Amino acid sequence: MDKEALVQLYKRYIHCLNKQDWTLLPALLSENVTYNDEVVGVHGYIQMLQRDFQAIPDLNFNIDKIIADPPYIAARLLFKCSPVGVLFGFAVNGREVVFSENVIYEIDNGRIVKVDSVIDKQAIAVQIE
Amino acid sequence: MDKEALVQLYKRYIHCLNKQDWTLLPALLSENVTYNDEVVGVHGYIQMLQRDFQAIPDLNFNIDKIIADPPYIAARLLFKCSPVGVLFGFAVNGREVVFSENVIYEIDNGRIVKVDSVIDKQAIAVQIE
Repeated sequence: MDKEALVQLYKRYIHCLNKQDWTLLPALLSENVTYNDEVVGVHGYIQMLQRDFQAIPDLNFNIDKIIADPPYIAARLLFKCSPVGVLFGFAVNGREVVFSENVIYEIDNGRIVKVDSVIDKQAIAVQIE
Repeated sequence: MDKEALVQLYKRYIHCLNKQDWTLLPALLSENVTYNDEVVGVHGYIQMLQRDFQAIPDLNFNIDKIIADPPYIAARLLFKCSPVGVLFGFAVNGREVVFSENVIYEIDNGRIVKVDSVIDKQAIAVQIE
């Protein structure tokens, strides 16, 4: 996959997430997709996202930067949202918080096969203190 | 700067960090370099690194992945080290911990001008519990 195709695939992926389109998403994920070195598979990956949307009803993935270098793509994602209860161990309880995520994806055969994500969880702790 | 030059610049940067070479490093940093949206400048950036090495005497930056897409470079860095006291608010006290950092750099005119870093601090909390 060339760089432009990678970027388009990634934008489709983020669009699926924001639309909570769990029917189109499987076509973008490898059967054995890993999240932070754990094999979660397509079903586990979607369940993880569904739990995220339950915890954060107004969750929206905003792309700040895309860095594409086949077979990898890195992104900086920005979030501004109001988690309803406890998020990452912090009692947010509906307050609005902002935080970022730097995430690296490996693409194989047109599908995301590996996701290495670091979310700035401490930013949330600081905001609700 | 083309992609290969960017990768070479980044490898020189990491080499400087691991050697604690504070004389060569300024040539790789923009005068107004920012770290997580704060203008720290060359002097402030080096002071930040020196504090890191005081807190973590065996600190070593290990590159897991480089994703280069001029003018950006993203990296996944892996750490296995023994911070001497409190790190990121956690009393590590010399225990060995492993954690990762996903970081995105913007390069301008052959120098790093913007650093957006997310360190997996919660991984440390889990390991010392």
